Amino acid sequence: MSIVTLTTDFGDGSPYVAAMKGVLLSINPAVTLVDITHNVRPQDVRQGALFLEDVTVRFPPGTIHVAVVDPGVGTDRAVVYAEIGPQRYVAPDNGLLSRLTRRTTPSRLIRLAEPSHWLQPVSATFHGRDIMAPAAARLSLGLEPSRLGPALETLVSLDWPEPQVMAERIEGEVLDVDSFGNLSTTITDELLASNSAGRQAVVVCKGRRIEGLLRTYGEGRSGELIALVGSSGRLELAVVGGNAAAMLETGVGQRVLVQWT
Amino acid sequence: MSIVTLTTDFGDGSPYVAAMKGVLLSINPAVTLVDITHNVRPQDVRQGALFLEDVTVRFPPGTIHVAVVDPGVGTDRAVVYAEIGPQRYVAPDNGLLSRLTRRTTPSRLIRLAEPSHWLQPVSATFHGRDIMAPAAARLSLGLEPSRLGPALETLVSLDWPEPQVMAERIEGEVLDVDSFGNLSTTITDELLASNSAGRQAVVVCKGRRIEGLLRTYGEGRSGELIALVGSSGRLELAVVGGNAAAMLETGVGQRVLVQWT
Amino acid sequence: MSIVTLTTDFGDGSPYVAAMKGVLLSINPAVTLVDITHNVRPQDVRQGALFLEDVTVRFPPGTIHVAVVDPGVGTDRAVVYAEIGPQRYVAPDNGLLSRLTRRTTPSRLIRLAEPSHWLQPVSATFHGRDIMAPAAARLSLGLEPSRLGPALETLVSLDWPEPQVMAERIEGEVLDVDSFGNLSTTITDELLASNSAGRQAVVVCKGRRIEGLLRTYGEGRSGELIALVGSSGRLELAVVGGNAAAMLETGVGQRVLVQWT
Repeated sequence: MSIVTLTTDFGDGSPYVAAMKGVLLSINPAVTLVDITHNVRPQDVRQGALFLEDVTVRFPPGTIHVAVVDPGVGTDRAVVYAEIGPQRYVAPDNGLLSRLTRRTTPSRLIRLAEPSHWLQPVSATFHGRDIMAPAAARLSLGLEPSRLGPALETLVSLDWPEPQVMAERIEGEVLDVDSFGNLSTTITDELLASNSAGRQAVVVCKGRRIEGLLRTYGEGRSGELIALVGSSGRLELAVVGGNAAAMLETGVGQRVLVQWT
Repeated sequence: MSIVTLTTDFGDGSPYVAAMKGVLLSINPAVTLVDITHNVRPQDVRQGALFLEDVTVRFPPGTIHVAVVDPGVGTDRAVVYAEIGPQRYVAPDNGLLSRLTRRTTPSRLIRLAEPSHWLQPVSATFHGRDIMAPAAARLSLGLEPSRLGPALETLVSLDWPEPQVMAERIEGEVLDVDSFGNLSTTITDELLASNSAGRQAVVVCKGRRIEGLLRTYGEGRSGELIALVGSSGRLELAVVGGNAAAMLETGVGQRVLVQWT
Repeated sequence: MSIVTLTTDFGDGSPYVAAMKGVLLSINPAVTLVDITHNVRPQDVRQGALFLEDVTVRFPPGTIHVAVVDPGVGTDRAVVYAEIGPQRYVAPDNGLLSRLTRRTTPSRLIRLAEPSHWLQPVSATFHGRDIMAPAAARLSLGLEPSRLGPALETLVSLDWPEPQVMAERIEGEVLDVDSFGNLSTTITDELLASNSAGRQAVVVCKGRRIEGLLRTYGEGRSGELIALVGSSGRLELAVVGGNAAAMLETGVGQRVLVQWT
């Protein structure tokens, strides 16, 4: 019952994804493969990191998550194996795991350095197929991770914007835009709960004021700009039956304020 | 050998789909997951209903189909378990199962009302992950459906256009447009067979007359507008090597006539 | 541990793909289904053939690859079973296997002609569901291939452009454009190695000269047009962090030269 997931920026139906699955199944024909997404924006390591944070926590303990958003493939960036909480990861060491490690210190880090476990010859352009897929397949068969290479001290980390909490407001920003055009922000459920003091939130974004948070999209009127806490636990701006990113002409990095009344 | 299928409007590569798979595999790591589609037009319950009608009948008896096209999530619409013919369904009660129930009365209906089987805390915006996926996973492990909640009498039903059969013609309309731009209509194979009386059909749509039905796309000339009975058993308008919806500048709801010569 | 892969031009989330999976699982509920791609350009048999060549070789011996890019469905083109190297294929006989057979003569060819193994009634428009999927499912259960129909002598073959090797240059052309806009050419790794004689390659395309091949995308500057040998072993033109097809306003069939300095 070994599960290996795949998260890439290769696009749906990419032959690169299919090649990785072929390699995985050639080594472990009984592996259960799950596509998390192949629609990370090309080479957008930050969006990949957010996907991994939101989704991988839902999988059974011991699941092996292979993530390939890898603009530095073929340079000297490392490829790593990481245990973070009960989940396991195989990824380039370029910040792709740095949302996960904000909350949880990895319990084990290994740099993949043992070519005998790789597909030979290793191409310079596709370590997902030639290094990561074979490593994940062997781990899924029970290979002891230390056989893959030496221990590593730390992972590459990216700067992530942190919301600023002030007396009368929280200042955050848009972290990601989903496929419906909903704007997901840095402001979390917990932050709202610990600062509201029973007051009602007013969300301000690009000059628009939204009075109060809804519990659900269904409470808004069609076409209305609303704010609510999304299923990932982050404050979200959305348009009922529409696209908030398009309506506000904005995207990742846009400043978002929460005030109290 | 439990199979659970997923039909949603979340879009390919959505983290919402991946989260549902994680929840399903966490409860039943041996479940076989099959994506039916995640490309239902956003919040288009009618298109979702047509997908389920056309496709789920092809699956092995006992397959559990989870369908999430759910604009009313978080309102008081119910979430239901239904047995319709040999197939099983978990879906919001918003008409998504109402193509299936036009032909076959459900043999069992249950309203999901037992929070102990849900993921806690239940979000207000994502019942697919928090209620439907856990219910389907437990059913796939053999949970007796009555444990999920009380019996239900009927499902919400949508109005579906019915073709009108007259002495000298059949009046129907376009029900759906597929990814090739083919126009699928309300006029079925059976209706044509029982009314042709040996005469040849003439299909009329937006002022265009198509004389006779072809057996297959390959019988037409490139670029020709043709009519044929598609693989779902419905009269279809298509352009050989092209896109009928684009050529005729039309879509769902367009009136289509069949006359006889 | 039977694996069946699917390669089609039906588009992601197509109900046609889902129907094929339902048929496969109805006959063999234990089959492992793998989507190779459903994004072959509609009716583009040549692109489908390239996908199969690049990807299927990565799968375990004995894998059954079902390929449906089938503009001639319903005409008298045959449907075939082929053993090519250690892989097995079920496909229309329209050239879809003709990249694979350039390198390796099939060890076995059978024309599917035994209706008792098909889904009845066979539609005129969807042999993927009614003939190919049931055949693949039965093969995955161990059906002796000769039960599907008579032996066949040869497959339909397409003309594929061959690079021309001259004293001072190699003339090739663009074979395919991937989802990043990278241009994959007819000029292979082996051809470059056997003709370079220690000299450096200069790649010329649409009046642009690229001096030397990089090992990897990461060695180029952002926005730079580069040439390298891609993961499929073919000379590739790419723009670092960009789209070469768009920058050069070109695509399949474009002439590409390699000279030596």
